[in-house]
Amino acid sequence: RKVLTHRDIARMAEALERQGVRVIRMDVGEPDFRAPSVVVERAYQEMKAGKSRYTEPKGRQELREAIADYVKMKFGADVKADQVIATMGGAFGVYLALASTISPGDEVIVIDPSWPIYKSCIRYVGGRPIVLETRLEDNWEPNLDELNEKMSAATKAIILNYPSNPTGKALSKKTFKGIVEIAQDKKLTLISDEVYADYNFTGSGHNTVLNYPEVSYVLISSFSKSWGMTGFRVGFVISDLDRANKMAAIQSMLITCIPEFVQYAAIEALKCLDEAKRNLEVMKERAEAVCKALEPLPVSFYKPDGAMYVFPRIDVEGIDGSEFAVKLLEKKNVSVAPGGAFGNYFDYFRISLGQPKEALVEGVKRIGEFLSSMS
Amino acid sequence: RKVLTHRDIARMAEALERQGVRVIRMDVGEPDFRAPSVVVERAYQEMKAGKSRYTEPKGRQELREAIADYVKMKFGADVKADQVIATMGGAFGVYLALASTISPGDEVIVIDPSWPIYKSCIRYVGGRPIVLETRLEDNWEPNLDELNEKMSAATKAIILNYPSNPTGKALSKKTFKGIVEIAQDKKLTLISDEVYADYNFTGSGHNTVLNYPEVSYVLISSFSKSWGMTGFRVGFVISDLDRANKMAAIQSMLITCIPEFVQYAAIEALKCLDEAKRNLEVMKERAEAVCKALEPLPVSFYKPDGAMYVFPRIDVEGIDGSEFAVKLLEKKNVSVAPGGAFGNYFDYFRISLGQPKEALVEGVKRIGEFLSSMS
Repeated sequence: RKVLTHRDIARMAEALERQGVRVIRMDVGEPDFRAPSVVVERAYQEMKAGKSRYTEPKGRQELREAIADYVKMKFGADVKADQVIATMGGAFGVYLALASTISPGDEVIVIDPSWPIYKSCIRYVGGRPIVLETRLEDNWEPNLDELNEKMSAATKAIILNYPSNPTGKALSKKTFKGIVEIAQDKKLTLISDEVYADYNFTGSGHNTVLNYPEVSYVLISSFSKSWGMTGFRVGFVISDLDRANKMAAIQSMLITCIPEFVQYAAIEALKCLDEAKRNLEVMKERAEAVCKALEPLPVSFYKPDGAMYVFPRIDVEGIDGSEFAVKLLEKKNVSVAPGGAFGNYFDYFRISLGQPKEALVEGVKRIGEFLSSMS
Repeated sequence: RKVLTHRDIARMAEALERQGVRVIRMDVGEPDFRAPSVVVERAYQEMKAGKSRYTEPKGRQELREAIADYVKMKFGADVKADQVIATMGGAFGVYLALASTISPGDEVIVIDPSWPIYKSCIRYVGGRPIVLETRLEDNWEPNLDELNEKMSAATKAIILNYPSNPTGKALSKKTFKGIVEIAQDKKLTLISDEVYADYNFTGSGHNTVLNYPEVSYVLISSFSKSWGMTGFRVGFVISDLDRANKMAAIQSMLITCIPEFVQYAAIEALKCLDEAKRNLEVMKERAEAVCKALEPLPVSFYKPDGAMYVFPRIDVEGIDGSEFAVKLLEKKNVSVAPGGAFGNYFDYFRISLGQPKEALVEGVKRIGEFLSSMS
């Protein structure tokens, strides 16, 4: 079975676009928002003032203090600047967390469906991903008994990613706390990728690992999603000081530091609370519109609590997600990410909400037409 | 024996600076030049136009073609854009080269004195650094017979870094070719870090691995030194297509890509030939001034062919390079990198030419005073 990833579909979509075809791009996990203009201007001013030199590997003190203040304000978390590292986006944060935690042969629990990089990065650092599957029928709720059963002496960490890419699931406080307790009990590290923390549609608040400093943890966050800053490549990690120093040593060796003027741009972004809020409102509206448009189609899905995706199952017999994604692109010029990229979910596909509402609704309409033509 | 690195000295120097002490900083390998203003303006224009999105992992086609054209123009090298990857500075290029070449237990030959990251990065990817020492008495010329003797069945690569950090040595065409032939004969990969290629004082042309496409190679280069763009964090690697694809897959997983607007800034830098030439002239003048100032001191050194360093040996008995660097900083407020950081060269120190000539000459004068006070 050939499993296509969203990268494969993206390449096919780009090839079509080069031929002049207008594709509704619902494949890439990238918001269409622009970075706030104060962010751009600050980067420019600093660049002009010569702030394009090497910095401390963890990043400028001023940025790390601003991040510590920000998580204090958002989550009441008490974090020192020295525990914070400005990283090359959330992605490098995932790598640093794994590289500083995992030795060859160690096991890491991944809750599927999940962003494919977790598994490839675990393997890359010599570890073994152990998959805990969750099910649409259970509202994507992880079963903590099953989680306990996945543990072995080799288990060193659990990766969490809530709000979830691709399901949009957010955990209840009870479940989140349950996982924290398991990690504490088994002396595991909780690697919590919270890059979608600002896209929370529930109004009931984001559960962050920062509120459980008693567990060994690495928080991963990013400026990419909240402020439309993907191409600035800036994120951050927070952990206990020892691990932060270990991660900083790896970052220092591999990339020295992130661009200096980008660090100042990030300080500016942290002040853009209105923009982050507006982006959240827009994302929430899109999620609602897409869900409404999906309602009459032969698909089943969980209405997202957050993040920027909807992950429907195709309720038409004999359809493979990869084949579906390719044919949908060819026949209807709509690109989605095939479900198989996220685990054992071959009859699912992922819709990314990184497009204006009208385009998304039109895309879902075409998905409906395509599904009708197949059944 | 406690070996201090230039990072330790830098931290001590920064602590002094925070106390208001003016330190002559000759420790950090970073030019004081500003990025050309067209580079800054281009970055800004692209950022404003929303060019802050994800790109292909290798970098934008336009940048990779510009790099291919550039190495064609500079070295007559025939390289396709697909062989080029825009990386997070030269440092991440070194990592990608090693990570795509070395398996645990493999050996990599490093020619000492050398930039300390080579050895730490080889160990990080599970390899073993095998050191070929060179000597001031031999004008830092690597002995190819000794090189041959260092080979074992586990040897997979040789790292070259000419013009050299820290010695300023450049290889003759004959020696460079000799190393290429050994690599070819033993089926090794030549990892050639040529970030100082534009700082060549000899007028006899830079030897690049790109002129030997018959050997398995990775070229590492950077925009940092030639154009004073350290804090932009942009460099590039070039290799055969297979290895380039392997490196691109690692870059994709770890950092996704480098910032989009930085990629466009790099395109602009490649056009700034006059600035690169002016920076070379300035660096050459500084090297001459520093060598002249060192002449009467109780030190021995090789007059650099290129790069941005002078690496003198202290000809005063019983002086340890680390101790020397610390006391020089405390008593004379001059910071240099201790020789022990670069290998078994404990009575050496490295002067970085990343400061105006006047500051460098004053720094060397103080070194002279300090040495007199010791003997």
